[in-house]
Amino acid sequence: MDKPLKYAVFGAGSWATAIVKMLCENLNEVGWYMRSVYTKEHLLKEQHNPNYLSSVEFHLEQLKISNDINEIAAYADVLIFVIPSAFIHAELEKLNIDISNKTIVSAIKGIMPETGLLVGEHFHNVYNIPYDNIAVIAGPCHAEEVALERLSYLTISCSDLKKAKVIANKFSSDYIKTKTNDDIIGVEYAVMLKNIYAIAAGIAHGLGYGDNFQSVLMSNAIREMKRFIKKMHKMKRNINNSAYLGDLLVTGYSVFSRNRMFGNMIGKGYTVKSAQMEMNMVAEGYYATKSAHLLNLKNAKKTQLPIINAVYQILYEGKNPKKVFKKLTDKLN
Amino acid sequence: MDKPLKYAVFGAGSWATAIVKMLCENLNEVGWYMRSVYTKEHLLKEQHNPNYLSSVEFHLEQLKISNDINEIAAYADVLIFVIPSAFIHAELEKLNIDISNKTIVSAIKGIMPETGLLVGEHFHNVYNIPYDNIAVIAGPCHAEEVALERLSYLTISCSDLKKAKVIANKFSSDYIKTKTNDDIIGVEYAVMLKNIYAIAAGIAHGLGYGDNFQSVLMSNAIREMKRFIKKMHKMKRNINNSAYLGDLLVTGYSVFSRNRMFGNMIGKGYTVKSAQMEMNMVAEGYYATKSAHLLNLKNAKKTQLPIINAVYQILYEGKNPKKVFKKLTDKLN
Repeated sequence: MDKPLKYAVFGAGSWATAIVKMLCENLNEVGWYMRSVYTKEHLLKEQHNPNYLSSVEFHLEQLKISNDINEIAAYADVLIFVIPSAFIHAELEKLNIDISNKTIVSAIKGIMPETGLLVGEHFHNVYNIPYDNIAVIAGPCHAEEVALERLSYLTISCSDLKKAKVIANKFSSDYIKTKTNDDIIGVEYAVMLKNIYAIAAGIAHGLGYGDNFQSVLMSNAIREMKRFIKKMHKMKRNINNSAYLGDLLVTGYSVFSRNRMFGNMIGKGYTVKSAQMEMNMVAEGYYATKSAHLLNLKNAKKTQLPIINAVYQILYEGKNPKKVFKKLTDKLN
Repeated sequence: MDKPLKYAVFGAGSWATAIVKMLCENLNEVGWYMRSVYTKEHLLKEQHNPNYLSSVEFHLEQLKISNDINEIAAYADVLIFVIPSAFIHAELEKLNIDISNKTIVSAIKGIMPETGLLVGEHFHNVYNIPYDNIAVIAGPCHAEEVALERLSYLTISCSDLKKAKVIANKFSSDYIKTKTNDDIIGVEYAVMLKNIYAIAAGIAHGLGYGDNFQSVLMSNAIREMKRFIKKMHKMKRNINNSAYLGDLLVTGYSVFSRNRMFGNMIGKGYTVKSAQMEMNMVAEGYYATKSAHLLNLKNAKKTQLPIINAVYQILYEGKNPKKVFKKLTDKLN
């Protein structure tokens, strides 16, 4: 055997914390970069993340925690990024070491707003990482259920399937089952699009639509997702696999999904601004909506995306949610 | 125009009541057969069904109510059956008039336990109804939401698409959108199978599995449904259309679904018998599980149906739900 690869997680949100927990089931040591000095100090003192999944207790001897992104990037062979797409660019600016020989794993949902690129594409273009060394993690997986050690399934995508399997093994445990595929682009888009559909589900709920409509919306969403992804990257894939449909469902049907909650507030009459202020955060799907809209505009032969268009009109053009959804209902089937 | 067709509904459960309500939006008169004298008397006196959707008020001048199945069958041109599959056989035994020239619409979920036939097949075989005169109604649609006039979508299937459209028109209204297709066999099987998957979802919930697993289960369920239906009747269909996936989702994710509730009790440790007694009814999916199992056994080349098999083992072979689901989790992906 070669010397075992070192893994590190970048980010300290709920999903990042869940990923560190999963890796700690299999690895003697996990690197963990976080921006916040307070979070680091709290972790070192109390053995848990003060802000997310605080019931999860870590063994400090398993963690190599630092506020220095370069220290952790230098330490690890496999860098797992779990920073919201809106902040990843600013974080990466701090990197001043060469990471071109590392393996990059993205657990980031969405597109980088600054460049319109998938996270994988960004690492490839900016850091010269070969595509064979870029992987993506998809759910369906709420971090909260990982904290509770409830059985969850993860999909690791990498064009190098052998590499995907090696990474997947580090995540597998009693409560985590993993599968692999080589559709990294499809999975990245699916992860991004599901958040838009979760916003749509929330808007529908906020407007008073019921379960019957919700199921029609989701059934249309998966077909729309299939059309979108097919346009972006044509290959044989079963859109009903867990990484696509399962991930859509867990997000669209969960009352805990922040994107759904954001949509719900919009449906109930909050403005985008006030909903964001009330939630004290920007839901990933907000940016994803714009990215998906722009990507579709770029295509010569545009794809019919009635749900994404409806969400775009509401979030970015100030259109009335009730009217937009009334029109949308005629386009669904 | 020909003289307008007369419609009648057979049954007085919640779905039957919802269907009468929908038809009353479009027709001057709707025939309504119900077995219970008490229900009839109550309806005539109080203008609502005493047992189901009692908030829905009917205009008596629009209803032709009778306890005599032959009277209503003779009255109507289009007979809509909405009687649970376990009881339809006994009700049909009362028929002594020729109905071979009528159009039959089945809103029955499942297979007739006595014959193992789809309801459409039964009408074709026993009553000499040509397939072009047999239609099926599928959701996704909770009756309770129809009562509340919440936007819902229905699919009417008939090999004669023109006929499907005529029937669909009678259901369309401000709160009901309809679509049609000619995949009557596929839709009938989908309607039957979804109840098994709803039981599976309930068992999983009862056993303590969370949302992450639930979404994996549903994503596997739709793929299993696709395999099953394809084996029974191969044709081009998009399994993600509302009549298949949407209907599965509204049933599998709804806490109001009786099948899900039944499964939940099984998962929590009730025996089949005690769960049925507690619910004071037999969930449709209970029979459907056996039918689906038998149908698959009959096939020379059996289809892999891990979820249906798991539910079958629990409901009919007395296997331990926890152990069966533990094994099932290894087969899902």
